[in-house]
Amino acid sequence: MRESWANPADGPAGPSAGPAAGSDLHLDLGGPGGLRACLMRALRDAVRTGRLAPGTRLPSSRSLAADLGVARNTVADAYAELVAEGWLTARQGSGTRVAPRAEPAAPTDPSGARPAAQRRSPRPSAPARTPPRVLHDLRSGRPDVSAFPRAAWLTSARRALTAAPSAALGYDDPRGRPELRRALAGYLSRARGVRADPERIVVCAGFVRGLALLGEVLGTTVAVESYGLWIHRDLLARAGARTVPLPVDGRGADVSALYGAGARAALLTPAHQYPTGVPLHHDRRTAVVDWARATGAVVLEDDYDGEFRYDRRPVGVLQDLDPERVVYLGTTSKSLVPGLRLGWMVVPEALLGPVLAVRRETAETCGVLDQLTLADFLDSGAYDRHVRAMRLRYRRRRDQLVAALAEHAPAVRVTGIAAGLHAVLELPPGAEEPVLEAARRAGVALEGLARFRHPAAAPAPGPGRDALVVGYGTPPEHGFSPAVEALCAVLRGALGRPVRG
Amino acid sequence: MRESWANPADGPAGPSAGPAAGSDLHLDLGGPGGLRACLMRALRDAVRTGRLAPGTRLPSSRSLAADLGVARNTVADAYAELVAEGWLTARQGSGTRVAPRAEPAAPTDPSGARPAAQRRSPRPSAPARTPPRVLHDLRSGRPDVSAFPRAAWLTSARRALTAAPSAALGYDDPRGRPELRRALAGYLSRARGVRADPERIVVCAGFVRGLALLGEVLGTTVAVESYGLWIHRDLLARAGARTVPLPVDGRGADVSALYGAGARAALLTPAHQYPTGVPLHHDRRTAVVDWARATGAVVLEDDYDGEFRYDRRPVGVLQDLDPERVVYLGTTSKSLVPGLRLGWMVVPEALLGPVLAVRRETAETCGVLDQLTLADFLDSGAYDRHVRAMRLRYRRRRDQLVAALAEHAPAVRVTGIAAGLHAVLELPPGAEEPVLEAARRAGVALEGLARFRHPAAAPAPGPGRDALVVGYGTPPEHGFSPAVEALCAVLRGALGRPVRG
Repeated sequence: MRESWANPADGPAGPSAGPAAGSDLHLDLGGPGGLRACLMRALRDAVRTGRLAPGTRLPSSRSLAADLGVARNTVADAYAELVAEGWLTARQGSGTRVAPRAEPAAPTDPSGARPAAQRRSPRPSAPARTPPRVLHDLRSGRPDVSAFPRAAWLTSARRALTAAPSAALGYDDPRGRPELRRALAGYLSRARGVRADPERIVVCAGFVRGLALLGEVLGTTVAVESYGLWIHRDLLARAGARTVPLPVDGRGADVSALYGAGARAALLTPAHQYPTGVPLHHDRRTAVVDWARATGAVVLEDDYDGEFRYDRRPVGVLQDLDPERVVYLGTTSKSLVPGLRLGWMVVPEALLGPVLAVRRETAETCGVLDQLTLADFLDSGAYDRHVRAMRLRYRRRRDQLVAALAEHAPAVRVTGIAAGLHAVLELPPGAEEPVLEAARRAGVALEGLARFRHPAAAPAPGPGRDALVVGYGTPPEHGFSPAVEALCAVLRGALGRPVRG
Repeated sequence: MRESWANPADGPAGPSAGPAAGSDLHLDLGGPGGLRACLMRALRDAVRTGRLAPGTRLPSSRSLAADLGVARNTVADAYAELVAEGWLTARQGSGTRVAPRAEPAAPTDPSGARPAAQRRSPRPSAPARTPPRVLHDLRSGRPDVSAFPRAAWLTSARRALTAAPSAALGYDDPRGRPELRRALAGYLSRARGVRADPERIVVCAGFVRGLALLGEVLGTTVAVESYGLWIHRDLLARAGARTVPLPVDGRGADVSALYGAGARAALLTPAHQYPTGVPLHHDRRTAVVDWARATGAVVLEDDYDGEFRYDRRPVGVLQDLDPERVVYLGTTSKSLVPGLRLGWMVVPEALLGPVLAVRRETAETCGVLDQLTLADFLDSGAYDRHVRAMRLRYRRRRDQLVAALAEHAPAVRVTGIAAGLHAVLELPPGAEEPVLEAARRAGVALEGLARFRHPAAAPAPGPGRDALVVGYGTPPEHGFSPAVEALCAVLRGALGRPVRG
């Protein structure tokens, strides 16, 4: 796989780089800014560290673009700017090469931000403080974006936009396009058992906009699972809703603690607790609905990865127990891609009026083109086909991860893997911070469980307090095995090599 | 044009119906709900009023769909539901006909909302309270959505999505896709003279989200033009910013009134005051920037229809006078379609940090697919071509409107027509309300100037206090002449016939 055409130091392929067929140029493309900025940072880095020696000829923009899976212009622009900056030279017939003197003098803006294109005069940059490199992204909460079914999506887009009445292109109904609400109602009732009336569905620009909307409408104390995404806690607080933590144990959120918590709403992830991975125990499902009925509260059901269940029958939704007491929220961020920004809520009758009133006041709706496309994508069965294929892919990855950890890091206990796109790796006491630090140094992006804990919550009893949350869905296919290897190497190094029996 | 195949009462074609070639079935499709709901309402209405007599055979779903420019399924579904409701009958070989007994008994939900599809059991409906019918939509603030260049947009979508790196499909940069920001920077500087650095552009889900974001960041008193869109005033108030009115006269907003208004920001429409249509006088442009510099305030420049200027050279943007004191806001809602939900801000350096901080906390970004498509649409010149074509179309309409009013309603003075998609029709004193009422009865959707006035503002001196704001951009091509005729009929009726000299 590694044909030697230059004299780079070895380095693992970054998550977006892929194996560079025919070129041994491994680049990591993590970090902030556009892809061009990342590529430029990576090339400067390679030159600065000597991985690319002065005079080395770089691949043509066409072939490097093909290797990296990026647009040719991206590479061409990056090359051109680095020539302007003095890192590279370009001569007709001689291609693009590393400049003879690779240590330019003046400091560069450490953020890497470049002023407008007219200031292209050569401006050599001194070695900047290198931000930590991400070579393997194993953070949770995101799918394999390289698997987005582009051709199928474009087919739906063409069909949907061709058939759409002109009226669909104007200012939208605050609930969103009826075509999408009908398609969602059909899909959700069939695939998740949701009681879905199109007239009670509200399309949101992602789960976060739905949650913010509910936070504003409820404007009260919301109980949240003591382990959960910090973004959601912060969102609710911004929207005027105080959050109180609910303990989470081996049976999910301890809903008995809701009594006396003073909450008028509870935000739960019943199918697959995020991030601990535990499904909400059956008794607690009925108990939380009883609580809502008894107190006039509502449950917010975040069904973020409900389609991805591997080992047994899918867990039906909580909302089915009482659609008038449960708001069902779903998203395409995990089943398709986060960049699509399409989610939905199925809203109890009593909340629908207030929710729509806020939407009318803010005039906030979602782009209709993607709504219409998603409706077609759902109706045509393309969504089902994609989810089925991804379920297989993620299950294989889960199995591969589990096997690798069993071999290389037997001190780690893997949990929460009956479903979803992430696993919890329980560590020996005190190991979370050292492992995270080792991972950072090795370029492996990881999250520890501590980060998910509600600031007001005591660490959970029972399951290990020290743990990692590993998103095995995140890397592209070609990057998954390297990521698992890197993770195992980090764990071996931090926890000690296993004793081979 | 009218072949008699049935015995309907005459009625003008609705804005979305179009001339029904080969069938004399005129239907108005305005009103809330999806297109199917509108079609069903229109058919029930036609049966109830006797326009369609019992036993009348309706056009096949295929041909009615072709006539109306809607999807065949829409018509087929509407027919099927009306058969279930008892209004129509369907018999093989006999087609779909109006049912023999057209006066069903039980009340229907006046909103027209239907429960989930499983409740399809025949449920005859009594004549409901008929909501006012909109036959001609002449409200301002919207373009001709039937002109959206669907094929060109799909071409860009295919190109953009095919070329996009996978990383573009993940959680977006809070500023939005760099591809779009670069394309916007190029377009805005070329077409509007904006000083546009891609790193200072923030893509928003429409102007309203940008304004809400600024309102939250500024969180202070914002001066707004005393005539303006009420949605914006309400949005700012929600975001924590009090609004105070600035008088508007023949030279635009009276910016001298900013001193002492206690405002730290001013929201203006300098190129084409909305709705009065006056450009901000040159002296006032420099004066408002002077005010911002002297007081440390910012000007928010709403360039909502800057591309559409007819009679003279386009007015350059205010932002060019001082990019550090002016936030430039633009949108695709008028140049493309409101349903796209893509707008942008070019933000002064000092505000960029706070704006991005809010975006990070709310995790609010726009769908990346449309962003990437718009970038390609801009870069390929398709946007320019479309705007050019629409400029011609809207200018022709403006000229037609002006000529028709000169002939049929010479008591009306037309202003604000050097640019944009709307005109102000000044009326004799006291005429605004009677004209609006006559328009409502005639099914012509119109806005009066009074609705735009800030609640705390005294009516403006100078230009007539009584006026209409007429959106000549709104109707589809085939519906424009009928709309103008209807408007003239309303004016003739309310203001009296002109004396022919």
